[in-house]
Amino acid sequence: MLPAEFGLIARHFAPLAGPGALGLLDDAAVIPGPAGTDLVLAADAMVAGTHFLPDDPPETIGRKLLRVNLSDLAAMGAAPLGYLMTVALPPGTDDPWLAAFAAGLAEDQARFDLQVLGGDTVSTPGPLTLSLTILGSVPTGGAIRRAGARPGDDIWVSGTIGDGWLGLRAARGEWPDPDGRLARRYRLPEPRLELGLALRGVARAMLDVSDGLLQDLSHLCRAGGCAAVVEAARIPASDASAPIAALATGGDDYELLLAAAPEDATRCQALGLTRIGRFGAGAPGVALLDGQGRDVTPARLGWSHV
Amino acid sequence: MLPAEFGLIARHFAPLAGPGALGLLDDAAVIPGPAGTDLVLAADAMVAGTHFLPDDPPETIGRKLLRVNLSDLAAMGAAPLGYLMTVALPPGTDDPWLAAFAAGLAEDQARFDLQVLGGDTVSTPGPLTLSLTILGSVPTGGAIRRAGARPGDDIWVSGTIGDGWLGLRAARGEWPDPDGRLARRYRLPEPRLELGLALRGVARAMLDVSDGLLQDLSHLCRAGGCAAVVEAARIPASDASAPIAALATGGDDYELLLAAAPEDATRCQALGLTRIGRFGAGAPGVALLDGQGRDVTPARLGWSHV
Repeated sequence: MLPAEFGLIARHFAPLAGPGALGLLDDAAVIPGPAGTDLVLAADAMVAGTHFLPDDPPETIGRKLLRVNLSDLAAMGAAPLGYLMTVALPPGTDDPWLAAFAAGLAEDQARFDLQVLGGDTVSTPGPLTLSLTILGSVPTGGAIRRAGARPGDDIWVSGTIGDGWLGLRAARGEWPDPDGRLARRYRLPEPRLELGLALRGVARAMLDVSDGLLQDLSHLCRAGGCAAVVEAARIPASDASAPIAALATGGDDYELLLAAAPEDATRCQALGLTRIGRFGAGAPGVALLDGQGRDVTPARLGWSHV
Repeated sequence: MLPAEFGLIARHFAPLAGPGALGLLDDAAVIPGPAGTDLVLAADAMVAGTHFLPDDPPETIGRKLLRVNLSDLAAMGAAPLGYLMTVALPPGTDDPWLAAFAAGLAEDQARFDLQVLGGDTVSTPGPLTLSLTILGSVPTGGAIRRAGARPGDDIWVSGTIGDGWLGLRAARGEWPDPDGRLARRYRLPEPRLELGLALRGVARAMLDVSDGLLQDLSHLCRAGGCAAVVEAARIPASDASAPIAALATGGDDYELLLAAAPEDATRCQALGLTRIGRFGAGAPGVALLDGQGRDVTPARLGWSHV
């Protein structure tokens, strides 16, 4: 999606958006689908060297983009239907590479129960470039949007935060990763599809953490017109030795971040979520507090994929 | 779409396709849509220097890809609904360029009555790379497929053939183009959307000419299990001085090519189509005949965009 904070491009493209596009500010667009359903649509692109490492195993590359798009569906509470993918291949891409690339996609198609619907393959003198459009389905009116958080709602996250940041470093050999778990998570994020479905009727607002926990939380604040306070000590992390500011701004986690009413706390806990703070009244904005209640909010809340 | 003739890639990707993907061999995929309709979906990618000239005016670049996708909808007899686009921008892409790029898209959105539903913008160290997924709508079961031509059917085309080939040369200054019409056609092909809608119930099989008239005709032959004979003198051309073999194999025309029963000839003529030959019994294959009935079929029927 076009990140709202990337003003240059949003200014030019937002006026082109139709009503289903939700102002290009949500994780996906929503349009009418077959009887009783809405279709949910999202598109993402990835470039070798920017979004994945050029020497990443080919069987992970297409899957990573597929999973990033599946994560957008999870954030809307949608079930996957299918996808279209275009691939710009650099010269010399050989048959074994393509076979491994396709085999990785086949594995994830089976795992997440969806099929490719179409696509295009072109050649490029530049780096390998992939683009994927995903289609999902929700009951009519049931898509979980970014807007909807209210003062007093709890802030919940799934999984552990900062694994995208740790994983990139691990994949580059810059962070200890004895069992390879972190590097695997960088190469193959885990879309929280089942969790997204289970949060229908619970999450009042939701997105997936792609730009960094704090920055994505600021999106929920802006869309909901409220403030947010996060307790740093509550943020679930894989490695307590990593700086919390890095984990909370690093991005590429693809965990779900949501607002839920306090009376739904038991349901959220039962789903394995962690409560990290609360939405409050006030101007949209995010504050990170340390154990002594001091404001330790980093100057930069996240980063843009652009 | 993945060209069937590009065996290397088709072999790897075709097994991934779901039932709606029509074997990845049609112009678009077809899945159930809102009550009484099917959704039609296609994706295409373009790379600067390969699919358009790097110094083409920015207001034409996004529109060209949009129109190429709209042409896929036209070929299925579908009406446009919306699109998602991803853009990989090279360093130094400036604000005026983006403004012109978006303005061109806005103009075509108004003209063809559709809106952007989503997308993604990333940076690339390589050439400008665009990918677009288009959505259209047809009455349930009404999509016009590539399969369906029968021996005895007439072969019809819209417009003039070879303007893609002439237009590229004109845009490079290699072909006379006093009024700039040919270069404009290269930069901004004309999707035959209204004609596609009017051909519902008439065209038994249809596609748009993108790989070259003869090569695309061979796709109709393979899908329909029949042969085709084209009379070179009947092929409508903008410039009679151009070699007919070049015009008939050049590609990028985005005209409609279809099979229709002989009893529909009057309707096809009334729609401004030109009859260029006939399908016959026999092994799938295309023959081009000159005015004396001699076989002048070029060795290479077209080209691949890969």
